[in-house]
Amino acid sequence: MGDNIVEQFYGITVEKRQVLLMQKPVLVWFTGLSGSGKSTLANQLELKLYSMGFKTYALDGDNIRAGLNKDLGFSLSDRKENIRRIGEVAKLLMDAGLIVLSSFVSPLKADREGIRQLVGSENFLEVFVDCPLEVCEQRDVKGLYKLAREGKIKDFTGIDSPFERPENPNLVIASHQESLDDSIAQLMKKIKNHLSS
Amino acid sequence: MGDNIVEQFYGITVEKRQVLLMQKPVLVWFTGLSGSGKSTLANQLELKLYSMGFKTYALDGDNIRAGLNKDLGFSLSDRKENIRRIGEVAKLLMDAGLIVLSSFVSPLKADREGIRQLVGSENFLEVFVDCPLEVCEQRDVKGLYKLAREGKIKDFTGIDSPFERPENPNLVIASHQESLDDSIAQLMKKIKNHLSS
Repeated sequence: MGDNIVEQFYGITVEKRQVLLMQKPVLVWFTGLSGSGKSTLANQLELKLYSMGFKTYALDGDNIRAGLNKDLGFSLSDRKENIRRIGEVAKLLMDAGLIVLSSFVSPLKADREGIRQLVGSENFLEVFVDCPLEVCEQRDVKGLYKLAREGKIKDFTGIDSPFERPENPNLVIASHQESLDDSIAQLMKKIKNHLSS
Repeated sequence: MGDNIVEQFYGITVEKRQVLLMQKPVLVWFTGLSGSGKSTLANQLELKLYSMGFKTYALDGDNIRAGLNKDLGFSLSDRKENIRRIGEVAKLLMDAGLIVLSSFVSPLKADREGIRQLVGSENFLEVFVDCPLEVCEQRDVKGLYKLAREGKIKDFTGIDSPFERPENPNLVIASHQESLDDSIAQLMKKIKNHLSS
């Protein structure tokens, strides 16, 4: 490039990536109490999408809290920063052309709205996994509700910290009543609508 | 999923993504002074890879400092955190199956080694864009060297903050001597070696 260097940004645009990947990016944002079934739904949805040739990535506590956000705790400000960074990473993954699935409790309406604004409402599918606290607590897959009831975890959503129900989600899944197959079928319908829009 | 919920992680592995995307992920890490030509090389390399059907993503100051890392300044600790997060994001993008190109000055050996450890040495191509300070300063594409010389920017790499040259980079590009086409050819050779390894 010698002395004639010129800053030229012939970047590969998201539109060009759509051609290469043969899909439109979207963020499927699962919100709901701990134990409501968010990760199970995301995993199953990702398997289904993979089998159809879609290029996806799933964000959840496992790959975020251990890496990018390992400097964050569970104070209110850290939880807000946790969600903010997840939104920014989702945006980068979408810019790369991927269909992104995210599974985080994300109890605050303002935080979820922030994500919607960030990635654009037309690219955001808010999925409320609406499972009663009693059922989540009975499942207690990770043993966290027990610890929260014993006061060993503070500010646990549903116990001593609020969950603000989405007012107008794109989809509600009552995971304690619907079969997993039915839920996935509903999700696929929403995603197909998005892809063909 | 009713009451029989079981935590089953049938996740899509990085190996499965390699099948779908028909490529192996790699992180091409461009390091060098401001104005050395990192972004120009990354942009041109991405165009080349795109034209061959490879799925890529490029990280640089434009898409990182304005979003994920907009809370960070330029203090030593913030610069370390900046690079740490970029490494974690690159790791996620690679886990998603992509070839990742990153263009950051990244002047400290310890920071670059941290990234290498994080993503695995076998997936890391360190590219040292070795262009003399005098040439970078003469180009001064962003006008930053002038500001640094006037003392209006502090701790500017190459002026009043050190750049630690890579000791054993995977590739050295002398951007003031080589043509852009030659540089891209060298990069493609390295990447093809990686993909077929």
